[in-house]
Amino acid sequence: MPLELDRDRFVATMEEQAEIGGTEGGGLHRLALSDEDKAIRDWFTRQLEALDLEVRVDAFGNMFGRREGTDDGAEPVLIGSHLDSQPYGGIYDGQLGMIASLELLRSLEDAGRETARPIEIVNWTNEEGSRYQPAMQGSGVWVGAHDIEEQYARTDEEGARLVDELERIGYKGSVPAEPREDYHAYLELHIEQGPYLELAGKEVGVVTGVVGFVWGAITFSGEADHSGPTPMHFRNDALVAAADVITGVRRIPGTLGERTVGTVGYVDVSPNSINIIPGEVTITFGFRDPDDAIVDEALERVLHEAEAAAEREGVEWDWELRHRSSAVEFAEPCVDAVQGAADALGYDSMRIFSGAGHDAVHLTEVCDTSMTFSVSEDGKSHSEEEYTSWDDCYAAANTHANAALELAEDG
Amino acid sequence: MPLELDRDRFVATMEEQAEIGGTEGGGLHRLALSDEDKAIRDWFTRQLEALDLEVRVDAFGNMFGRREGTDDGAEPVLIGSHLDSQPYGGIYDGQLGMIASLELLRSLEDAGRETARPIEIVNWTNEEGSRYQPAMQGSGVWVGAHDIEEQYARTDEEGARLVDELERIGYKGSVPAEPREDYHAYLELHIEQGPYLELAGKEVGVVTGVVGFVWGAITFSGEADHSGPTPMHFRNDALVAAADVITGVRRIPGTLGERTVGTVGYVDVSPNSINIIPGEVTITFGFRDPDDAIVDEALERVLHEAEAAAEREGVEWDWELRHRSSAVEFAEPCVDAVQGAADALGYDSMRIFSGAGHDAVHLTEVCDTSMTFSVSEDGKSHSEEEYTSWDDCYAAANTHANAALELAEDG
Repeated sequence: MPLELDRDRFVATMEEQAEIGGTEGGGLHRLALSDEDKAIRDWFTRQLEALDLEVRVDAFGNMFGRREGTDDGAEPVLIGSHLDSQPYGGIYDGQLGMIASLELLRSLEDAGRETARPIEIVNWTNEEGSRYQPAMQGSGVWVGAHDIEEQYARTDEEGARLVDELERIGYKGSVPAEPREDYHAYLELHIEQGPYLELAGKEVGVVTGVVGFVWGAITFSGEADHSGPTPMHFRNDALVAAADVITGVRRIPGTLGERTVGTVGYVDVSPNSINIIPGEVTITFGFRDPDDAIVDEALERVLHEAEAAAEREGVEWDWELRHRSSAVEFAEPCVDAVQGAADALGYDSMRIFSGAGHDAVHLTEVCDTSMTFSVSEDGKSHSEEEYTSWDDCYAAANTHANAALELAEDG
Repeated sequence: MPLELDRDRFVATMEEQAEIGGTEGGGLHRLALSDEDKAIRDWFTRQLEALDLEVRVDAFGNMFGRREGTDDGAEPVLIGSHLDSQPYGGIYDGQLGMIASLELLRSLEDAGRETARPIEIVNWTNEEGSRYQPAMQGSGVWVGAHDIEEQYARTDEEGARLVDELERIGYKGSVPAEPREDYHAYLELHIEQGPYLELAGKEVGVVTGVVGFVWGAITFSGEADHSGPTPMHFRNDALVAAADVITGVRRIPGTLGERTVGTVGYVDVSPNSINIIPGEVTITFGFRDPDDAIVDEALERVLHEAEAAAEREGVEWDWELRHRSSAVEFAEPCVDAVQGAADALGYDSMRIFSGAGHDAVHLTEVCDTSMTFSVSEDGKSHSEEEYTSWDDCYAAANTHANAALELAEDG
């Protein structure tokens, strides 16, 4: 029989954590390594200590709480997500995954129930990537995807070094930021941040993988000229070329795949004056799809658009790759555990690819991994409008907890 | 027989003025009411005093030098332009008009030649409008188009009030900033800032008027969302709508008139992040044409484009008019004087509409007006690349001087 989390305590704990860095608009402003992050970390430590767990903080601030298993030397099951938030973000995001994981440990303690494998709960440092880049930084360092010294040296907009902020809030731990043993599995619960579960009328998402994506920037260099006396056919307008690419990025996904998305999120115009033809414009672009071949094709097409636009306007162009992340398929045993838990609990679920990156992507480097998604109303996230009903939060939390339990009991 | 300016002294004086605020790139950085503006004003005062002219500075810093005529009570002829420059602008722009006007007064003095009408030379305060807005500010105050107290209160990017800067450099004069008598005519010499004279292989432009223009801003408000998990058909992307309008502004002039131009010079994207669908975007637009009906039609069309783009993307939109300036036709007697001077000097000239605004536009409010244009190589202006050969400068200066002389002798 599946374990059922204490719904009242789960909801109360969700509400309790949301007060630390809570905003007037009902959201959360708890940036990585801020005073609010320190406060939630202190609160989280107290919750782990109340369960008599072994708490350890690694050199990058990743926090672990370990509940031992009965089988000597069995590889642990790792569960969790992150407690930091976007600027004026929502209270669910990754926090839901942390509280669900905590409630699993509390429920096991309440029931005096043991597991074959140890269970470790983890709070990854700076998942959001808003104050310090890149996102998913703590898990990236932990799996060895990033060099810790390079990440320590990152600065925020005020110039504060990450390592100094980590020390200031007292969370630069003594344990090396790396796995100290092999792990059996990593399971994460997160809100979907998209509308697919809600559209399909499902209660829980069984995440089978994460889309691949590419980020780049294109710069057009034309000629800044007086907007009055310069005839149209004498212009080399960098912004007109950029506009063609923005339109192209809007169009390309519809020619490639059902799940392909493309976005221009950033524009920098120089000199950016009402009376001067733009001389230089930089735009970013991003494409995502579960199929890496489609991501590659989208990249090729946007570069063709840029080339054609530059030729039309008679401007120079250049581009740089900002990031390329391959699509990830989660391991079948973990996906099956999540699916099995949802089925056992009677939740109406569907398999889904994540459109956003998560710490779980890094974790695939070190162990089998999967995720549970909760419904996101209207697909909104990273804003105070982010919302998931307590029913949907609870369904996802129960699914996540039981999947972890199954993996931990499978000595 | 036409008067011929002293070419060597004219060129030497052009070079001398270009040293005050001169840049390493061979341009001029002499922003209105800066230390460099004070230095060129001091230099200009010394040139006027050397000619025993009556020098007066009005309450807005406009500087006048008066050479009396022989006919008692005859309305004076006003000539000049401006000595301030764009940031890292060129050395010709309006400076050429100032030095040509100065050389006319010097040549008359050298020759002991008298005119029926007084001739006044004027240096208008802040023609460029880069440090303080609007452009053509001094002439605008002088003709009564702007309230002087409102203009005094304008601040630069550092928050320095215009009136304080005027006092700081010692050019807040005691004379009211308004015409103290009726004027017979105003003549201005300026570089074309466009390519038409060069394209036609002409030496001098006889300016018959100035295009009308409209400036506005359009704001699109969509929904800022995560660029990953938000499907394309769930997006309300303010930037895509804006891109459609940028493309539209590029296309509209070609459907309206040979001389119509349209420009989007400014873009503001919020939140402007590679990973977030733009929620709000503001762009400016501008259209110019010698025919006001075409300017009005262009405005109507761009608003239609905005409406259609907003509907396609499912975003809200709004717009505001920033400025509407009617096309100006210069007075026939003044245009004829410029044409007659060019013909008498044997210069190959053509009639031309100005695509840029000039102090002369304001002056049409108080007297007959026209302008002479010099060739602008490649049409470049407002940059260190601005260039006019000394031959072309001299041709335009001689034309301007003789046109003024003809009007001043016509008692």
